[in-house]
Amino acid sequence: MAQLPHPLSALTVEESAVARDVIRSLHPDTVLLFRQIYLYEPPKAQVAEFLELEHSGKLTDTTPRPPRLAQVWFDVGAREKTPKYAESIVDIGLKTVVSTRTTGPGQLSSLIMDEIREVVAACDRSELFQDKLRQFQLPPGFEAIVEPWPYGASDPTDDGTRFFQGLVYAVNKETGGDDSNFYAYPIPLIPVMDAKTREIVRVLDVATGGKDDPYQSKTCGQNVIDHCQAAEYLPEKLPQGIRNDLKPLTVIQPEGASFSIVDGNRIEWQKWSMRLTFNPREGAVLHDIRYDGRSVLYRLSMSDMYFDGLVTDPNGDVQETKNVICLHEQDNGIGWKHTDWRTGRAAVTRRRELVVQYIITLANYEYVFNFKFDQAAGITIETRATGIVSVVNINPGQTAPWGNVVSPGALAQNHQHIFVARIDPAIDGQANTIVQEESLPVPMNPETNPHGNYYEVRQTVLKSSAGVDLAPQNNRVFKVQNRAKTNPVSGKPIGYKVIIPPTQLLLADAESIQSKRAAFANHHLWVTKYKEDELYAGGRYTLQSKVEAEGVADAAARADNVEDEDLVLWTVFGLTHNPRVEDWPVMPVETLQVHLVPSDFFSQNPAIDVPPSKDQGSKIWTTTCAC
Amino acid sequence: MAQLPHPLSALTVEESAVARDVIRSLHPDTVLLFRQIYLYEPPKAQVAEFLELEHSGKLTDTTPRPPRLAQVWFDVGAREKTPKYAESIVDIGLKTVVSTRTTGPGQLSSLIMDEIREVVAACDRSELFQDKLRQFQLPPGFEAIVEPWPYGASDPTDDGTRFFQGLVYAVNKETGGDDSNFYAYPIPLIPVMDAKTREIVRVLDVATGGKDDPYQSKTCGQNVIDHCQAAEYLPEKLPQGIRNDLKPLTVIQPEGASFSIVDGNRIEWQKWSMRLTFNPREGAVLHDIRYDGRSVLYRLSMSDMYFDGLVTDPNGDVQETKNVICLHEQDNGIGWKHTDWRTGRAAVTRRRELVVQYIITLANYEYVFNFKFDQAAGITIETRATGIVSVVNINPGQTAPWGNVVSPGALAQNHQHIFVARIDPAIDGQANTIVQEESLPVPMNPETNPHGNYYEVRQTVLKSSAGVDLAPQNNRVFKVQNRAKTNPVSGKPIGYKVIIPPTQLLLADAESIQSKRAAFANHHLWVTKYKEDELYAGGRYTLQSKVEAEGVADAAARADNVEDEDLVLWTVFGLTHNPRVEDWPVMPVETLQVHLVPSDFFSQNPAIDVPPSKDQGSKIWTTTCAC
Repeated sequence: MAQLPHPLSALTVEESAVARDVIRSLHPDTVLLFRQIYLYEPPKAQVAEFLELEHSGKLTDTTPRPPRLAQVWFDVGAREKTPKYAESIVDIGLKTVVSTRTTGPGQLSSLIMDEIREVVAACDRSELFQDKLRQFQLPPGFEAIVEPWPYGASDPTDDGTRFFQGLVYAVNKETGGDDSNFYAYPIPLIPVMDAKTREIVRVLDVATGGKDDPYQSKTCGQNVIDHCQAAEYLPEKLPQGIRNDLKPLTVIQPEGASFSIVDGNRIEWQKWSMRLTFNPREGAVLHDIRYDGRSVLYRLSMSDMYFDGLVTDPNGDVQETKNVICLHEQDNGIGWKHTDWRTGRAAVTRRRELVVQYIITLANYEYVFNFKFDQAAGITIETRATGIVSVVNINPGQTAPWGNVVSPGALAQNHQHIFVARIDPAIDGQANTIVQEESLPVPMNPETNPHGNYYEVRQTVLKSSAGVDLAPQNNRVFKVQNRAKTNPVSGKPIGYKVIIPPTQLLLADAESIQSKRAAFANHHLWVTKYKEDELYAGGRYTLQSKVEAEGVADAAARADNVEDEDLVLWTVFGLTHNPRVEDWPVMPVETLQVHLVPSDFFSQNPAIDVPPSKDQGSKIWTTTCAC
Repeated sequence: MAQLPHPLSALTVEESAVARDVIRSLHPDTVLLFRQIYLYEPPKAQVAEFLELEHSGKLTDTTPRPPRLAQVWFDVGAREKTPKYAESIVDIGLKTVVSTRTTGPGQLSSLIMDEIREVVAACDRSELFQDKLRQFQLPPGFEAIVEPWPYGASDPTDDGTRFFQGLVYAVNKETGGDDSNFYAYPIPLIPVMDAKTREIVRVLDVATGGKDDPYQSKTCGQNVIDHCQAAEYLPEKLPQGIRNDLKPLTVIQPEGASFSIVDGNRIEWQKWSMRLTFNPREGAVLHDIRYDGRSVLYRLSMSDMYFDGLVTDPNGDVQETKNVICLHEQDNGIGWKHTDWRTGRAAVTRRRELVVQYIITLANYEYVFNFKFDQAAGITIETRATGIVSVVNINPGQTAPWGNVVSPGALAQNHQHIFVARIDPAIDGQANTIVQEESLPVPMNPETNPHGNYYEVRQTVLKSSAGVDLAPQNNRVFKVQNRAKTNPVSGKPIGYKVIIPPTQLLLADAESIQSKRAAFANHHLWVTKYKEDELYAGGRYTLQSKVEAEGVADAAARADNVEDEDLVLWTVFGLTHNPRVEDWPVMPVETLQVHLVPSDFFSQNPAIDVPPSKDQGSKIWTTTCAC
């Protein structure tokens, strides 16, 4: 009998086909639209038992493996007026459906690229839209371009209709060509498509008046984009050309990379090991992360980012995609250093990092996500925001308090990006505890602080699932500890420290739709008790959601015990982005980092055995340097 | 007539010798001890006038240059019981003293390495110390080692005596050799030296009792370090050896570096230009920092770190030192990226940085300071803390709330590192203004916020010099603006944004010596009006200081107008360091960054003309990657 794949490996193309066929066979007389097919991870208890055998070297050819499960998202009756959306879990081995869930009131299935593309076609067909567009009389050489977007939650009829919208720009085909930056020419129209009928049901006028007349909309006229200016970013289109004084800086690894990939998706690098999978909702997911054989995290992912859905096509065929995730090593400067000033003997190592990187493009914007692993057993979760800021048309000479004019006639609106990283720890086992640690002043007093230079390090155990906030003035940090295991040197529980940047939380009013549907954005850290398949901070169905349902706030509200429990951390961090002119036409990266560092997990600096920098082959220095 | 050097260039060896000789000639019959000789920067008005000519191409061979000035720090009557400390400014051209300042009550001159070394010799000579040491009966093969330190401010006699202290450790000469890590064996004694008599005047016993008996000191016994353990960090001494699976990662620049150094100390790189000098109190100092010819900063430095004083020897001879500062380029990942999802055309650049790096070793500890310049016209001020944490002896089995046992018998004490970067801006000229910007919620209301998704960006001008704090919950940032110049695109004043990490401020009680002598550490940002030679946040004389005198708090207290003025920013950031076992024996770097980014200073992303990454020669990717 052929052995099942590792339980933490992505579905193979063959497994996906089995899942698709199981669903098809149950719906012989209807057209199905497949949204996604990917691995449904087996229950943690099963996986943990398997991993225990795997890492203790007890795995044999006959060791039973958890059954392979697929989650299949699909629409039944895709060509009918009211298709039904379903999510089934399919047992690949048994070729049976294990369970099926359909959307309830207020729940819409997540979008796929096919729907997004349809917005463009619907606008082409729409008399309503074409009439409104014609009233603007674009300059010669310009053509309108529709940029599809999900609709958000402001459905005025509120009857659960599935909508999409378009933002409209003009592209200068004549002088700019197909790849010209059309965002520089915003047209103040928003067509709205009913996803069922695929018709444009209304076209909104967008205000262009700025602060002096905030609700004034242009509805016609020749001059809607006459005051706008080209803003090319492709090298061959730049009026000034590209700079020519940047000399090559080449990284070479003459002996190859230090990492290896074994058993399909297991990465091994510098005492780290982990499994890598990918799914369309979270992107790269890392599983069973260990250092020197010791368990650190069970699972690490970005919660709730949607990725290009081309992995599954609407017929349920899975395409193998290339270049979705890249893996590389990089140098990040000095790792640790000490010089004995008496003898002059210096010891210095450089900090090598393994980077798991993936990038998503969301219309105008892009996010770069990096999971970085270092030799000192630290993990960095990094986001870089880049791409083109969203702009709307603004009348000549006007400004607005809700944005900044970044190009003539183009107002970039103030906005926030709020990210959630889901961290499922397994600090030498599943039973973990969160300890909040603060450093607090102690008033001078003769008994415990006679000189006034003592401060208290106060630890508070989080007993119940909850959302909690940072307090940088108190140097508040959180530790995930395994209290059953004691560091042999310090006598304290082994653990990892979680360092979250104390960025601003959601600014929207508590009564706004934005606030209600993104309850996750109201705290810096959520701690919940582990529950199977509870993966999405913003709720299971986010498209046009009016509340965050089955999200992290609901999970926390269970008030589960999280002391010595299998728990999950959700770190919330973001960017309040009030655009600068320098963010145009493509913005330089804005970078945020969450750090996980061992805290009394090891018996010494885990990077102490990194070879000295002279033995690492780095020749980064080009002037005199003692480093 | 030979032309004078550029006013922002370090003194030459010849100029230093002239300054020394001028001072010597005024003190013919006494022994002088020279502490430092380095450039006294000419008044800003003179330099600014000169720079204006220089950058407008109007400099000729006959353009008058500001006179060259040296500051000479020296002791008069160095061999007498009461030497007098003086600081003179010498006009090199005229060979005259311009002014002299001597220390007043409570003011002590800064230390030099010669004094530091003397502590070791004084301990060797001291019967008092040797008697106490002998009572501990070190194990065979061990020798005591004295680590000299400045004394701080806790002089019990309070008569202004200049003291130094020693921390005492034992080195295992037999098995560890000369380069062994002696910090693993702390001996609970602190000898105190009178710097005038160079005698050990007292030896303090250090408590080893831990939390159960916090004031209990061992004063004799064989077992003082018997419970300690070796903690080697040099590669050849590691019991486990170094790891052997790290493959070389080599950075090569086949065409050389992209930067050039012209006119002695002027660095040019990717539209940036700046002058570099070095002095023993601030380390690397960058002057006249411009991007694309436009002035950004007049001067940038770390305020108040002492560096190796070997630049001037006690006889006033200046030694040219090598490798004090290093300069290199590095790659820092994606700089900006956008993909047009319709056409699939991606534009991606990598972010190249110029790094000006210097490193100081302060006994056990080291700091790495990096000034980084990027192609998007941003400046990053980075500190990396590494080295060996300071430890004291603790009895077997004990712990203490004021630290962590990081090695058997070695307690690393909780402490703070607080840094100040002094930023003297010149945003297209000297007349600048600081604007505090916050992003604040606005309650939902029918007029200005009908959907509850609007937030207010509130700007407040700082009118008077002051210390101000961060408020990350409000996304508080500060902008330095030149309000006389308007961005042609946005219509807003040109400026730079200053992003300071909201780290914890000083924890010591307000009445403690630590708090009084470090008033600078009580705010995240100080804004003062520019004053000649006002460079040191912690005050001019910090050794054993009891208050911060002539420091940044005093400067701010003048309540000068700072609107449209020549002003200075002092950013305060730090690390509350409660040591982990993983910080031992040498700690992995802990990194902090301050960012300066243009904010409506340019008319678009200044990095838009960076060549695409494929043209930059980078071959950093070793697996599939679309970046």
